[in-house]
Amino acid sequence: MTFLFHSDAIRGQIFKEAFARELPDLPYSMDPATVDPDAVRYLITWTVPENLSRYRNLEVLFSTGAGIDQFSGASIPDHVKIVRMIEEGIVRMMQEYAVLGVLALHRKLPAYLQQQRTETWKVLPQPQAGECRIGVLGLGNLGQAVLDQLKPFGFPLAGWNRSERNIDGVRTFSGREGLKTMLAETDILICLLPLTDETRGFLNADLFDAMPRGARLVHVGRGPQLDQDALLAALENGQLAAAVIDVTDPEPLTAGHPFWHHEKILLTPHIASVTQPHTAALAVVENMKRLRAGLDPIGLIDRQRGY
Amino acid sequence: MTFLFHSDAIRGQIFKEAFARELPDLPYSMDPATVDPDAVRYLITWTVPENLSRYRNLEVLFSTGAGIDQFSGASIPDHVKIVRMIEEGIVRMMQEYAVLGVLALHRKLPAYLQQQRTETWKVLPQPQAGECRIGVLGLGNLGQAVLDQLKPFGFPLAGWNRSERNIDGVRTFSGREGLKTMLAETDILICLLPLTDETRGFLNADLFDAMPRGARLVHVGRGPQLDQDALLAALENGQLAAAVIDVTDPEPLTAGHPFWHHEKILLTPHIASVTQPHTAALAVVENMKRLRAGLDPIGLIDRQRGY
Repeated sequence: MTFLFHSDAIRGQIFKEAFARELPDLPYSMDPATVDPDAVRYLITWTVPENLSRYRNLEVLFSTGAGIDQFSGASIPDHVKIVRMIEEGIVRMMQEYAVLGVLALHRKLPAYLQQQRTETWKVLPQPQAGECRIGVLGLGNLGQAVLDQLKPFGFPLAGWNRSERNIDGVRTFSGREGLKTMLAETDILICLLPLTDETRGFLNADLFDAMPRGARLVHVGRGPQLDQDALLAALENGQLAAAVIDVTDPEPLTAGHPFWHHEKILLTPHIASVTQPHTAALAVVENMKRLRAGLDPIGLIDRQRGY
Repeated sequence: MTFLFHSDAIRGQIFKEAFARELPDLPYSMDPATVDPDAVRYLITWTVPENLSRYRNLEVLFSTGAGIDQFSGASIPDHVKIVRMIEEGIVRMMQEYAVLGVLALHRKLPAYLQQQRTETWKVLPQPQAGECRIGVLGLGNLGQAVLDQLKPFGFPLAGWNRSERNIDGVRTFSGREGLKTMLAETDILICLLPLTDETRGFLNADLFDAMPRGARLVHVGRGPQLDQDALLAALENGQLAAAVIDVTDPEPLTAGHPFWHHEKILLTPHIASVTQPHTAALAVVENMKRLRAGLDPIGLIDRQRGY
């Protein structure tokens, strides 16, 4: 009945202390070389180890990150529960970054930075927050938290999810038709979708064309969701006015890629949200307690849906 | 008993409609050439007209902007009430810009933009919001609104004001000693002071040196409050890590000024907050009603203090 921590040692130590304090009876290991593989029932990792099958009594596979797309391709037995990371630190960082991205685009920071580079002092037309409609793709835990954080600014808020969701103060949409309706009324789109076969290439020319001319994008999902050429074309022809991009395909972005020097793109190296070890350790402890009480862990993946 | 609108015609029309609806008995003029100067009791303007003395029955001088430093040097009779603009639109825009500035500095946007320019994909150390202490200089109407908007992010909040203020959830300081105490515990400083003789040159080398090494600045006060050479020196020697600057001296900034191309400065052309004519018209109507009821108008200036 061992919990195996399969990631970097600094984080492992933080987890170890939380486990020793909160779950003193649960054997905890950070060393695959010395652990008895038959004893391992719980494993936390970023990528699936190649020799996963040696843990033949594995019951739960935890991801150290908010997504589990990095598990795709690995052969994980059907009965193993997969659990993504949902913890306060990730949520708060994503709220910060999304609000930063929205405000930067709403207040025309890319254009003002371009003016700075060209020594231009010129006030640009500024719509009020009430005229700037925000649409969020993906209404899970992160999407809802981002919408919450945007509420005090007075932006009209909307959100789309594959399945229906109801959120107070937010117009919600689902399905293909719902997506079209929301896009037509979205000035700043935030992508927070999980990466699945269905969302690969989701941010493409058709999607951009369905938005009002001059719309903007905050991309904090996963790199392969964005058709990078379509984004460049939309920025070039004015369909989109600017974008804040935190995820690319591949990562790191290749040398000479047009995103590096594009005046309408603010690019960051996948830093929107990172698991915070102290709060993550508490979240996993909490999930272990839920599992012991016969409850589903928070962040349990639907193996069928893939997220 | 005439109200004279002495500014651009588009805004004047918006004011005219609000006055016609709300104060139909008050004569309203937008034309200094045809108005009877003796009838003018109320005047709204950005700069004081040179021939102000012709309005010898003037009782109240309204500023179209949040500040009244642009009135300095003009000869305004002592008995004339001076009223600055306090309206919802200015407040909301300042909240947006201040939060944008704080999040941009907290999440190291200047460094990431520099990485983008140099094709560098590197994750930088990121303190959590709870470790990033915000200090606001000036706890008037705007300073308090900015602190309110920052609350949901979890930053430790502090504020300094010449005279004492108490604000829920904010550590407040006043006086010389209070300033030193706050600065020593401030990672991101927001300047929202009014421009007076006392605040000219307020953001100088001594002030920067009183902050922790690597502190950052959001300057949304007035250009002459900042010692620009001291800022450049502090950025150069690392005492300050970065700055978001919306106001300069002079404005527009001169050609070739080092701020234009400084990698640690995000520069915008005095756009943080601009009076919004619709909400401003309602605010002035409300003040006219207060004056008629014998109350002080909102935003009345203390002629002695100068703000």
